[in-house]
Amino acid sequence: MPLDNPRSDFSNWYSEILLRAKIVDIRTPIKGSNVLMPNGYEIWENIKNFMNIQFKKTNHKNAYFPLFIPEEFLEMETEHFSGFIPEVAWVTHVGDKKLNKKVALRPTSETIMYHMYAQWIHSHADLPLKYNQWCNIIRWDTKETRPLLRDREFFWSEAHTCHASFDEAAVQVKESMMIYQSLFDALCLSYMVFKRPKHDTFPGAEYTIAYDSPLPNGKTLQIGTTHHLSNNFSKAFDVKFLDKDGETKHVYQTSYGISTRLIAGVLSLHGDDQGLILPPIIAPVQIVIIPILFKNKEEEVLNAVKQLENDISSWGYRIHTDLRDQYTPGWKFSEWEMQGVPIRLEIGPRDVQNASTMLVRRDDGSKQSVSLQDLENEISSIMEDISINLKKRADKTLENYMRSANTFDELTNILSNENAIVATNWCNNLDCATKIKENLSAGILGERNDITEKSTGPCVVCNEPKASKVYVASSY
Amino acid sequence: MPLDNPRSDFSNWYSEILLRAKIVDIRTPIKGSNVLMPNGYEIWENIKNFMNIQFKKTNHKNAYFPLFIPEEFLEMETEHFSGFIPEVAWVTHVGDKKLNKKVALRPTSETIMYHMYAQWIHSHADLPLKYNQWCNIIRWDTKETRPLLRDREFFWSEAHTCHASFDEAAVQVKESMMIYQSLFDALCLSYMVFKRPKHDTFPGAEYTIAYDSPLPNGKTLQIGTTHHLSNNFSKAFDVKFLDKDGETKHVYQTSYGISTRLIAGVLSLHGDDQGLILPPIIAPVQIVIIPILFKNKEEEVLNAVKQLENDISSWGYRIHTDLRDQYTPGWKFSEWEMQGVPIRLEIGPRDVQNASTMLVRRDDGSKQSVSLQDLENEISSIMEDISINLKKRADKTLENYMRSANTFDELTNILSNENAIVATNWCNNLDCATKIKENLSAGILGERNDITEKSTGPCVVCNEPKASKVYVASSY
Repeated sequence: MPLDNPRSDFSNWYSEILLRAKIVDIRTPIKGSNVLMPNGYEIWENIKNFMNIQFKKTNHKNAYFPLFIPEEFLEMETEHFSGFIPEVAWVTHVGDKKLNKKVALRPTSETIMYHMYAQWIHSHADLPLKYNQWCNIIRWDTKETRPLLRDREFFWSEAHTCHASFDEAAVQVKESMMIYQSLFDALCLSYMVFKRPKHDTFPGAEYTIAYDSPLPNGKTLQIGTTHHLSNNFSKAFDVKFLDKDGETKHVYQTSYGISTRLIAGVLSLHGDDQGLILPPIIAPVQIVIIPILFKNKEEEVLNAVKQLENDISSWGYRIHTDLRDQYTPGWKFSEWEMQGVPIRLEIGPRDVQNASTMLVRRDDGSKQSVSLQDLENEISSIMEDISINLKKRADKTLENYMRSANTFDELTNILSNENAIVATNWCNNLDCATKIKENLSAGILGERNDITEKSTGPCVVCNEPKASKVYVASSY
Repeated sequence: MPLDNPRSDFSNWYSEILLRAKIVDIRTPIKGSNVLMPNGYEIWENIKNFMNIQFKKTNHKNAYFPLFIPEEFLEMETEHFSGFIPEVAWVTHVGDKKLNKKVALRPTSETIMYHMYAQWIHSHADLPLKYNQWCNIIRWDTKETRPLLRDREFFWSEAHTCHASFDEAAVQVKESMMIYQSLFDALCLSYMVFKRPKHDTFPGAEYTIAYDSPLPNGKTLQIGTTHHLSNNFSKAFDVKFLDKDGETKHVYQTSYGISTRLIAGVLSLHGDDQGLILPPIIAPVQIVIIPILFKNKEEEVLNAVKQLENDISSWGYRIHTDLRDQYTPGWKFSEWEMQGVPIRLEIGPRDVQNASTMLVRRDDGSKQSVSLQDLENEISSIMEDISINLKKRADKTLENYMRSANTFDELTNILSNENAIVATNWCNNLDCATKIKENLSAGILGERNDITEKSTGPCVVCNEPKASKVYVASSY
């Protein structure tokens, strides 16, 4: 059955496809605390697998730190935590007994991780220390929740590293950016890399690098961040080491993270009116086989299908054969298209006779008969081509939302009429940023970090000539 | 540096090795809520990987259900939850606001999973439904905590399946037993499979199958359980389906689980005075290479080591080369022995000349020079042999704790002098079980399910002639 909502009606399309494609079910008793269904769970696992390979290559270690954070830890870093405090969930009772001290559920893990780092790091030989954790995070947002975009419980990866100097931490920031960009590229995302303005830097960080991707409604979605923390946190948590020069120093730190929000970005950016289109690297099923059965020819088709399944599986693909007999082939085609499976193979008696199979691409719907002899090579090259095509389309989406403005009138005019990402000029003054925010409900994403750009004029708000080229958009 | 505590002093050995081998660090602010360190985390990931392959083969789907459980759900199943209630952690506040209704952190997920199952299952075509979740579980035990054995936060896998009939659920119980036994065998564990007596059956279950492994102190450790739930839960949660015969029926269910406690069993059973001995399948590092450097010969050795590392890695092993120059080879030998790495390779100038390497097995300490030409085959056969040897030794450990008693005096005599697993006879009457528990601090594990056994006499407590052969032990 086709979707009720076209993708142009993004909000309803998004809600419908999450449930229909078995990504998320929100019919749970507590809002914002949802079921990650099998396809959603496996997409996250595939992202984890990709990341863990990158982490291993770059000498990161995975570990797991407690969900429970004592109240005094959150109080230690009030500047850092002031934003989280209204969303912190507190455990006050166990059974029918009140605890002496209430305990927080982690809204982020700096405090507990750095408390342990202080016990683990003694000398320069213990550095660099590069730990990551995959875990559930609790932020009891009382505003409107949106599955994967704004959940009260969600999954993330948070890496926290320690180094002997500011510069070594800066090199680590760059390594994290390479890792993330390899992930985002594998997911065929279009994105821009920004250095966030000072007022939007992570509290406690020296600077913040952020990755923003467009959604089909023209808003931007932050899909990851990297922070250079300097030695601000290490001073608060007393993470010290004896350096080669015999002096005791505080370590320099970085942290970086991605979350299940990234899935929302991928699904939204690539989907269409028929449903999801999944990048091959994360698709739970990469290839689906649909047998086309005719009376008295069932056996030869089913035998050929079985053989095909074994072969393709041995080539290393995640494959599924849909043998359900209560559905027609046509029904199955829509079902697997809706779930975003990159390649569909159809096999009927004529294909068996010709030692071939009909291959249908999800990204462009094109069909071709492929001889079984060529199939391994064809699949490999088509999978690559699907990724290239998705990336190209995503980049086009981003391009379509790009505007530029040299005056406040131009900026106002654009953002009152559409969601867009507007290149403009800004004096780096908070007052001007606030004026944009209050008048246009849009934020300054920052200066591009992936390309070098110069301002094209004075500040769009105050006309101060010393200005930087920045981007302004409405964000999720 | 050698361990401070020999394995015969099990309790101290266990605490020391967890920290020294980077399995668990308990120096956290809240007791029972620990850090799973890199080696502990990776062992758990390796167990997950093994299980996920089995789950995939048998058509289980992984999903993730919320951490938060509403109070009314726990009240629905009071019989089932009465045991958990004193350990349930309650979230009552968010930020500085009190919630209208307090919310529990999952002590187990039946309620939330079955609430969703009722929405997903409509007809026999939706069955069987076989979902598993890997998640953190909260049981705020106020008694003494023990890392991995009794934590307030721990990880587990819980599978929950639904079927059209009691018999189909019984077949699923058997499938779960095959999966678990393949895991326990891969972990080289010795274990017995029991059908628990009625008074120790999981509340709400028709029957419970449990797997018990010995610890080095002669106590037994339950390392997994499988439950046939009949339609008891489906009636409470109204999980119904339209059967082929046109009738609406409640589904029949099973559930089964393993937890991070299993790691405690594996580490304890195989370790020795030098530290851990890890079964190859879960070892974070399966092979460690230690270069033996002499002046002016460094380069040829390091080149050979690099080549060796590449080759072994391409054969599919998890390999690490210890290039740290602040430690002697001897120091490194003990360090990696302590961490339980199955195979150590030493390479010095003479080995390079002979195109060979010294291979040392962790399980029996034996050394042999192996020519590089034979190395791939040798490693493969030695890895297999290590698994066989560990399993043999584990079975011997179990055998050593086995006793039998035909009278209460004999039973008392054995259990007052040692921790042992005693085969005896029992009338299946709760009074007699209680007498054993109160007098001997030991429980009835049940009748063996992996072998068929007959009673060897009347009930050891009351002399009732109609008795079953059961096993009595003190358990963790």
